[in-house]
Parts: sequence; C-alpha cells; structure tokens
Amino acid sequence: ANNSGSNKHLTEFLDEMRSDQIREHLRKFTRLPHLAGTEQNLKYAEQIKKEWQEFGLDSVEMVPYDVLLSYPNKTQPNYISIVDHLGNEVFNTSLAEPVPEGYEGVSNIVPPYSAFSAKGQPEGDLVYVNYGRTEDFFQLEREMKINVTGKIVIVRYGKIFRGNKVGKALRSGHIHVVVFHVIYQRLSAIICRPHELNTDSGGAQRGNVLNLNGAGDPLTPGYPAKEYTYRFDLVEGVGLPKIPVHPIGFHDAIRLNMGGQIPPNSWKGALNVSYRIGPGFTDDFKSQKVRMNIHTNNQVTRIYNVIGRIRGSLEPDRYVILGGHRDAWVFGGIDPMSGAAVVHETVRSAGRLLSWRPRRTIIFASWDAEEFGLLGSTEWAEDNAKLLQERAVAYINADSAIEGMYTLRVDCTPSLHTLVYDITKQIASPEEGEEGVSLYESWHKRDNWTNDRNAPRISKLGSGSDFEAYFIRLGIASGRARYTKNKKTEKYSSYPVYHSVYETFEIVDKFYDASFKRLRAVAQVRGALIFHLACSELLPLDVMEYADSLRKYAQSIAQLAQRHQDEMETYMVSFDSLFSAGENFTVAAKGFHERLQTVNRLRVMNDQLMYLERAFIDPLGLPGRPFYRHVIFAPSSHNKYAGESFPGIYDALFDIENSADPEKSWDEVKRQISIAAFTVHAAAMTLTPPA
Amino acid sequence: ANNSGSNKHLTEFLDEMRSDQIREHLRKFTRLPHLAGTEQNLKYAEQIKKEWQEFGLDSVEMVPYDVLLSYPNKTQPNYISIVDHLGNEVFNTSLAEPVPEGYEGVSNIVPPYSAFSAKGQPEGDLVYVNYGRTEDFFQLEREMKINVTGKIVIVRYGKIFRGNKVGKALRSGHIHVVVFHVIYQRLSAIICRPHELNTDSGGAQRGNVLNLNGAGDPLTPGYPAKEYTYRFDLVEGVGLPKIPVHPIGFHDAIRLNMGGQIPPNSWKGALNVSYRIGPGFTDDFKSQKVRMNIHTNNQVTRIYNVIGRIRGSLEPDRYVILGGHRDAWVFGGIDPMSGAAVVHETVRSAGRLLSWRPRRTIIFASWDAEEFGLLGSTEWAEDNAKLLQERAVAYINADSAIEGMYTLRVDCTPSLHTLVYDITKQIASPEEGEEGVSLYESWHKRDNWTNDRNAPRISKLGSGSDFEAYFIRLGIASGRARYTKNKKTEKYSSYPVYHSVYETFEIVDKFYDASFKRLRAVAQVRGALIFHLACSELLPLDVMEYADSLRKYAQSIAQLAQRHQDEMETYMVSFDSLFSAGENFTVAAKGFHERLQTVNRLRVMNDQLMYLERAFIDPLGLPGRPFYRHVIFAPSSHNKYAGESFPGIYDALFDIENSADPEKSWDEVKRQISIAAFTVHAAAMTLTPPA
Repeated sequence: ANNSGSNKHLTEFLDEMRSDQIREHLRKFTRLPHLAGTEQNLKYAEQIKKEWQEFGLDSVEMVPYDVLLSYPNKTQPNYISIVDHLGNEVFNTSLAEPVPEGYEGVSNIVPPYSAFSAKGQPEGDLVYVNYGRTEDFFQLEREMKINVTGKIVIVRYGKIFRGNKVGKALRSGHIHVVVFHVIYQRLSAIICRPHELNTDSGGAQRGNVLNLNGAGDPLTPGYPAKEYTYRFDLVEGVGLPKIPVHPIGFHDAIRLNMGGQIPPNSWKGALNVSYRIGPGFTDDFKSQKVRMNIHTNNQVTRIYNVIGRIRGSLEPDRYVILGGHRDAWVFGGIDPMSGAAVVHETVRSAGRLLSWRPRRTIIFASWDAEEFGLLGSTEWAEDNAKLLQERAVAYINADSAIEGMYTLRVDCTPSLHTLVYDITKQIASPEEGEEGVSLYESWHKRDNWTNDRNAPRISKLGSGSDFEAYFIRLGIASGRARYTKNKKTEKYSSYPVYHSVYETFEIVDKFYDASFKRLRAVAQVRGALIFHLACSELLPLDVMEYADSLRKYAQSIAQLAQRHQDEMETYMVSFDSLFSAGENFTVAAKGFHERLQTVNRLRVMNDQLMYLERAFIDPLGLPGRPFYRHVIFAPSSHNKYAGESFPGIYDALFDIENSADPEKSWDEVKRQISIAAFTVHAAAMTLTPPA
Repeated sequence: ANNSGSNKHLTEFLDEMRSDQIREHLRKFTRLPHLAGTEQNLKYAEQIKKEWQEFGLDSVEMVPYDVLLSYPNKTQPNYISIVDHLGNEVFNTSLAEPVPEGYEGVSNIVPPYSAFSAKGQPEGDLVYVNYGRTEDFFQLEREMKINVTGKIVIVRYGKIFRGNKVGKALRSGHIHVVVFHVIYQRLSAIICRPHELNTDSGGAQRGNVLNLNGAGDPLTPGYPAKEYTYRFDLVEGVGLPKIPVHPIGFHDAIRLNMGGQIPPNSWKGALNVSYRIGPGFTDDFKSQKVRMNIHTNNQVTRIYNVIGRIRGSLEPDRYVILGGHRDAWVFGGIDPMSGAAVVHETVRSAGRLLSWRPRRTIIFASWDAEEFGLLGSTEWAEDNAKLLQERAVAYINADSAIEGMYTLRVDCTPSLHTLVYDITKQIASPEEGEEGVSLYESWHKRDNWTNDRNAPRISKLGSGSDFEAYFIRLGIASGRARYTKNKKTEKYSSYPVYHSVYETFEIVDKFYDASFKRLRAVAQVRGALIFHLACSELLPLDVMEYADSLRKYAQSIAQLAQRHQDEMETYMVSFDSLFSAGENFTVAAKGFHERLQTVNRLRVMNDQLMYLERAFIDPLGLPGRPFYRHVIFAPSSHNKYAGESFPGIYDALFDIENSADPEKSWDEVKRQISIAAFTVHAAAMTLTPPA
C-alpha cells in the first residue's frame, strides 16, 4: 500500500513500452559512427532533444562541457611494428578493422586505439605479463626473475580495467618502462556478416587508458569543465598515462614470435598459440625488436549532455534520475545504444502518461563522452553537486541493455534489493517458451544467489559506467539492470564484439534479441524502478536490506584478514568495532522500520531514507582517491571493475602482502577499520528519531 | 507576518531572562578553575546537565571524547632564563601570576603556558620580530638583514593568532629556529583588586599554539575522537608545533636587555621600554644568552560536551543550535563563562515556555576544550556531520558575552543581517541613560557601518571560536553576538585580562557589567536569534543580503588584485567570471525573493534557504586546508582571526608578492577565481525553482 503511486498508472506505463519502438530507436541511432566530440554525436543529441520534447517532457536542454578528449592523428596512423636489426619494419599491425557488411561506405570510423595514450615511438623487447595485474608483475619479477625496465609489455585483456594495467606497468617498471597493450580478446572475432561467427575478424578493443578514479575531465578535477573553468596543464592532468599504449587484435598478436620461458597455465589464454613470456622473440628472430608508433592527440573538445525533466507534482525538489550515455566508439549497436534506445522508449512511454504527474521530479539524461572516462555524467554531477546532494532520491544507470542472451543482471545498492525483486515479479519473462512466467522466476531459475539466499543474484555496483559520480562520489542510491550472458559457460569478459566496429544494429537484431523482447524487459525494469521511486508516497528503499548487507560485508572483510591471523595478533588488529557498528546499524534500521508502520511525518521519514546512502560518504575520500568517497562501495585500487565492500579496508589488506613495513601497513588497516566503523555508526544515527 | 512564531511567545521568552539570574549563574560557575580535562570541569558539566534537566529540556546528555590536551609538568615548571657565560641562570621569568584577592587559597591554577609547545631547553640570542607575521619575518630578513636561524624569537601578541606566529617562525627560520613567545600584552595588567587598575600585574596570556586549521583533535582529524577511533602518532598529529614556545608578561619582558638595531616605529609597542631587535642583549650583557625551559606534556584526555534538546513540534528534523564552551584557562570570568551564563539563562527561560513548543528542534551545547583548539565542538560536529549537513538550520555561537563596555558587536553570515537588525530593534539598550532607546539605535549611534551602509556595523565571521566547524567546515548559517569595547579608542587586542588568572567573576561584576544589563541584552540577542530561527514558519534568512555581500566581496578582492595591474595583464587574469557569477546570483536571489511572496510549498522554500549556506562549501577544501571548506568565508592563512571573503583568492594574491615563480602564482589566482565563480554560480542554482 505504501508502494502505491497507483498500480494502474504503472501498468499503463510498462504496457506502453513496445519492442518495435525500441528496435526503431536502435536502428535510428546506430546508422553512423558517433564518437564523443564529433559532429554526428551532436546531431544525435539534437535529435534526441527534439524527440524528447515531442514525447512531452516539461523541459529538455543541451548542456555542453569542454573536456579533454583524445583522437588518433588522421595523417599519422598508430601501429606496432616488428623491426629487424637494420631498423626496417618487417611487420606492421593492421591500421583498421575490416568493416562489416553493409557499412562499407561509412566514413569516420575511428581505428582501434588506446585513448589518452602518450605519444612515442619506443623500441624494445616484448615481455608478456598475463593480465597486467599487480600480482602478475610481482610474479614476473619475483618468481620468473624478469626485469621489465626498458621493455615493451604485452598484456591480455580481462580481469581489471585496461587503464589500471597501464598504471601497474608504470609502477612496476619504474620510469623507463614502455608498455603496449594487446587484446587477446577471446572470440573478439565475431564478424557481423549476418549469422556468421568466426574468430579471425581482425577486431580489436578500443578504450581509454586513464586512471581517473572518478575525477571526470582530467584537466578540471572537482569542477565542471565550463568555459570559465581553470584547466590544469596536460602534465598536471589527472590519470593521463605517461607511456604509449596500443590495442591489437589476436590476428596481429599471433604474429609475434614470443620467445623465452613458458608461462604457468594460469597465464595461458584460449588462443591456439604457444604462450611465452619473453623477453624478446624466439631464437630465429632474436635480433628483431618491437617498435610502437603512437601519434594520438589530446584535445579539449566540446561535448553535449541532453537533460530532460518531468516536474514532480508534490515534491518537485526530489529527483529520480535515469541516465545513460550516447557516445559510442563506432556505431554503438550494443554499447551504448541498446541502453539509449531503452531510455528513449521509457521517455516516450512516460510522455504519454503526463495527464497525471509523478509525485517527484524525473530527470532523463543522455550523457556524452562516457567512453573517455565517464566525462559527461561526471561533469554534470560536478555542476549540480549541491542540488543533487540535497535533492536526489536515486540514480538508475542505463548503459548497454544487453551483453548476453541468458538472463537479467542487476547491480545495485542494498536498499534497492527489495524493489528490484518486487518489480521483476510484475514483469513478464522475455524468453521463448516462458509465457506466463515472471521475469523474477526466469531470472531466479538461471542465476540463484546460492551462497547468500534463495533469490536471484544481485551484485554490488562496481565501476566503469556513468553511475560512478552519483553513487561513489555523491552517495545517491543507485542501480543498473541489463540482460547478460551465462557466466558459467561464457567466460570471456564483457562480450566478444565489445568496443569493436562490429557492434552494429544487426548484431542485436539478428543475434542478441531478434524479437526485442529482452530489451523491452530491460526497459520495463529500468522504467518500473524510476516509476516507483518517483511515484511512491513512501520511498521504496529498504533499510533492513542495507543492515543485512553491512553485516555480511563486515564478516567477509574480517575473514579476508584472517589469512594473516598471527600478524593480526602481533599488531593487535580487531574488527570488533566494525561488527559492533553493524549491530548498532541493525538496531537502528529495525527501529526505523517499525516506525515506518505508523509513519505520520512522510517527508521526515522519506528524507531519512533518501539521506541514508549519503551517510556512507566520507568527505575526505578513500586514501589517495578524493573522488571515490563511498566507504562501503568503491572499486578497489587493485580490481577496478568490481565493486568491493569496505574498499578502504580491502586495499589496506591487499597492501599487507607486499609491504616493507608491516607495522605501518597494519596501522593503515586499523585506521581504515576505524573509519568504516565510524561511518556505519554515523549512518545508523541518521535512522534514529530525528529529535 | 512570515517571521511570526508568535510575538507573544517571543516577548515572554525575552522578558523571562533576568540580570540577577545571569549574575548568579556566572557566580556559580567561576568559583574554581575548570580547565578542560580536569575534574572540576567535569563537575560543572554534571551540574549544567542537572540544571538543564530541571529547567525542562526534553533531553540532556553528556557526550565524551578522548582528545589530545597539553599540560605543564607539575614537578618541572616552565620558565625562561637569562644565563651568563658560565651557564648560570641569572634571571628567571615568573612561574605564576600573583593570585587576585579572594582567590588566595585556590589550588589547580595552571600557570601561564603555551599549550602543545614542544619540550626543550634551547639556548640562544633573542631576536624581536614584531607581531611575528609573514611580513614581519620578511622585513627582518630582507631589510634588516637579520637571520633568525638558531635564534630564539620574541614576538608581541596581537594581529594574528598566536599559533600562526609559531608557524611563521618555523617556516622562516627553517629547521633550526627556536622560538619563544612573549606577551607584550598592553594593559595586561589590570589586577582585579576591586576597582583598581594598574599595569604591572604580572599577568600573562595562556593559549594554545596549534595550527589546526579546523581539524579538531590533532590525532583524529576528520573523525570524532571516540574510544575505537584510530589515533595518529604524536609526530603525525595535525598542527603540533615542533619547537618550544612560552608566554611571558611584560613585567618579565622588560627585564630583557635587548640590544641591536632600533626597529621602525611600526614595530614599537606601547610599553615604556627601548625597543631593540637584537640579536642578543646590549653590550653590557653581550655574553648572556636566553634559555627556555619547557616541559609541557601532551596527553590524550577525556572531555565532555553537554548537549540539551527541545524537540521541535512540526519539524523535529530541523536543528537550530546555540553552543558555547565551558572550559576555561582558570576561572573563566569572561572567557567563556560570561557566555555560558547567558546560555544557561536562555535555557532556563526556554524551559519555562514549553507549554508551547518551537516548530523546529533547538539544541543547546556546552562545549569542552575550546581553549585547546575548539576540540569539543569540532569532535561533535565530526560525530554528527551527516545529520547536521542535512538538518541544521543555523548555529549561534556563545563564547564570552562581553569584552568591553561600549556597544554590541555582531559577526554573522550575510543571510542573518536582516534578522539581527530586526531583533535588536525589539530589544532595549542596556546603557545607563538610554531608557526607551532600542539596542539597535544605541548600537547604530556608536558603530555605524559608514563605508557600506547607514546601519550598525556587522562583521564577517572569522575564526577562533566554536562556530568554526559548523560554519567553515559544514556550511551552516552562523552568527555570534557580544558586548564589545570602542575599537577607536581601545586599541589592544581582545581585552586586557584575556586568558590570565584575573578573569574572575569580580571583573565582570565590578567593572564590565555591574548591573548585568549588558549580559542580559546579549542573552536577548542570542535568544531572539534562536527563537526566530526555530519558530518562524518561513526561515528568517535573507538571500538578498547574501547577494549584496557577494557583489561587494567580489569588488573588493578584485580591487586588492589591482595593486598588480601590469602583471594581471601579462598573465591574463580576469575577475569577470566572478563578477558575472555575482550578477547571476543576484538574479536568482531576486527571483527567489519574489517567489517567497506567493510561497505555497513552505518546506521546499525553507530547504532552499537552509541549504544556501551549504552551497558555498567546496568538498575539496581550501588549498592545503581540507577542513576549511567555505569558499566565501574563512580565515586567511595570513590573518587567522579575521574572516576574509574569498579566502582562496586572498591567499593566492598574498603569495604573489613573495613568489619566485610569478606565472605559477598567478595561475593559482586564476584557479581560485574559477573556483569562486563556480561556487557562486552553483549557489545561485540552489535558489532557482527546483524543477
């Protein structure tokens, strides 16, 4: 009854969403490449603005920022060579991917590159460092006794964010390392000639190699990149790699005749090549070196967010946000337009319902330059931080709506768990042969949260998409939902054509979701989240779920520390304060939950619900990462994509194993436990009666 | 009509405040020394708690923290010696002040000392450095060609915070300087033998010499100092001086036979001695040196805040805070008990009125350990930051209520200007012969704000009292009011007996306010502020006043920069973005003000009013000062007591004059202008319609 907002209106809203419309939106916005900062991406922005206005939003505006982007030099292509002892280039990696059928005449396809790479033409021997994680570099240096200084490093994609691979390489090899970056993208080679799958496409993965840690535009950290905004010099910019980096596809990678030791099996990928570590090539090619030729330019470029609003009827100063990016590396068939098409359909459907109004204001956002470091969404968050901090109820992210054909995937803050379960019970499964089955059942059957509970799995929010500034910097309750692959059988990271030219309309239309029912189901999930958050009298946020999660996270981080039980005794490290804070939070949450039953001051209670997530923000940020401020959820420094719980403690524990001064390192663990305990206590206080 | 909350109730509340009651409260709480961390200060806390409960507050609690305090060693006293060439001490400064009449048997009077001084027994020649400001050290080194390295520096009190004098000395003299610290406290020597004023009391000024910049407890910056809280080691503590420091009275200072150059007149104080710069003594005493003997100990000590609450009837989750400290260096006759007595009377009067309730919650606070760096108030602010950020409407500070016998002094945020004028028109002047004259008229007559406007002067909030964490860190609208001296004729800093043993009940009762009418007037001002803020339907905060002030501040900081007009052209520095932000803010404020006339969503408008001050907070803090976060008001690094407007720009401009790299320094000016312009724009946005 509390979660009302009228079931009739919800049903109308969800029924209005149509598969054929989503298909049409996707078709329309994937005909041409629309990289951030290009004319075509501005054209799409203008079209979206116009259509959102036609759909009936109260206001739609274009919001520009001038941010640092990075493009290949049009006259000097990037590539990697093998050079002989005379310095002749005897082999060059490909300059572009073969274009998929039907797109042959298209211009402005940016070739695969590592955005924000430093320029340079370094030469050296190759060394293979597996995924390029901290532990991989340690293993290389300590067990395999290979020094990477002065070498060119080759790493495979996966496990951690590509920008972090570059960061680790820099730290490992000290100042003289030169790195480059190979995609061993397993199955990267689905070529989208209709219905055809093969593994030698020549595809490669574009992507930025920044280490931003949530800073947004590298030249204006903490402030929106407006015309009058002070900009740092490039050398002072946040997270810009100081070394050349370049991605290659496996068709080029197999041409590198790596020599040296055979690596352990855990370092071998699924490619049918003989994996070797180097340094350098096999004996036959010992005199050959590798040369990188990187001419990529950084330049301050105008980008455009599109921001649409439906004004709330009773609480116009409470905001529910649905945002996803529009910019794509090429066509963006999956990333991001499968998501943008879903947002577009949500706006269309919402517009048809404006005879009544939501209680709270809904904000729709089409972000720009996500691929260059979440820039559009972060600049807007910086621009509006003061409003968002006081007024934002929730942020729902809308990046790619599909990355597989198996089932639903949801990552969200614990207080949204219950709402996600409730709404998926009201939405139909999009799978063939599951007529009359709810999305919840379909999902539950395929991905049960076995270890924790008998319900569909919901994961923690990590990083790598536009929710970051809203959730991890500002502490706004956030979530995301999409269709995904079967993790047990499909073990590659993301999806095979990720960030390649093969992400076209056709790959969705012919392969991932021919009926567009899966995308419709995702639209309904995202739409229903927005609807309930904007329309329910009482905010549908569940504090008890947060309490349960916090206790679990405390147990699990303490268990991680137990690996070092002796040292914990020596240095007197205890998690008791954190456990006790978790218990205290649970008591406060129960009390709050009980008072909800007899609620009479709706706005007071709703404010307590809204500000709960905010209470987990530490204004001082995580160590060395001032823009990652969420004490419970943030990417670990060592595992950028996955959201860790208690990331401060996690990182401190991670550093223990390689510490030269264990007392100091354990001291940092203790400090982080103390900060976490305080934060959980403080969050508990926000749930007690306000006076 | 908007500022209602019932005039009848206001009149009752103010009429209930009685001079004889204030006198009695002051008498009661000044009989014994009650330094922070001592048993007596805990006893007073318990008594205040008990009496507040009896007065009728809904709840009163003691809130303890364990913070770093600093006390002289009881068995090894601190003093300064003159030693002859054999190392014999031929003169020692006094170990204590002569005790005032009536207090002869009192124990636990802490002798004058510089709290948190490093220990040490350094020897060296004395050098006099005027007030010990940056510019004084520059003048000494550059014009007078005196190198302070290895010297003992003697500075006079005044102009800047004593902790900053120590900081400047450290920076100027590099690592080998040793400093000590003399009070040339003009008129420090009012001995409180009844009715008697003279200038050789033997008094000296206690005080801490920290450079905290708002951090609170030096060992737990950013977090409340609870039992489980991680503490830094002393060497990592924030703001702890690394050199010995000690205060002496002028009766000791005149025994130092300073030699060397005669300083310029601006370096001469009002003492009847021949001012010399040194280094060292006059020729007759050339072989003598000065030796400091400092044995002060830092120790983590429990302190206690007393927190009382009246629950708001309609908006219990909106807080109006009246807070002042209780701890005193000795008896605290003026500082702080004249203020604490006023709070006590406010609580008593408020308690009598609880047949009706204020609309919002009122919180009364008796802070501990203000004298040791605003510790009690800052730790509580850290403990409750998440609640305060969302819920605090205003903070009214209640330190010493009287520092002179002339007229009212008010420092507050611009949005409180109008309220201060309104209420002082309703309060009677306490001055003899001014029956029927309002406090406003009496005040206006004595201190007109000539340069700016025809109204009584209101100043910017600076630093040095407990409002700091609430205003400068958290961005809560704040103000303070007290009775003050005539600045034109009484040119000493603070007041003559400041921080000496002579701050007794008698000095107030016999000298400053025999009728206790002045303290009653201050109680009424503070009380009326609290009343209106807690009871008015519409919050009595004036956004137009903020707009006017911002435009003035922008003009005035730009004018300061005009001293360097040529360089501004060379480095292309412009204040246009700041002016334009000020205009934009004015437009938003006018629009908001107009909408107020037809207000229908009270809580929405009130939230906009409440959060306006919050919008001036930059979460990144001022450069190098993470806990000073208010972009409009904060102490300059160079002038700690005075609140500067646009402190970031001010400090950057200040550094221009001594910069080795002007381009870089002007870059910092530009960066600060950009931050200020952004912040004012963002604050303007908070005043526009919310959707």
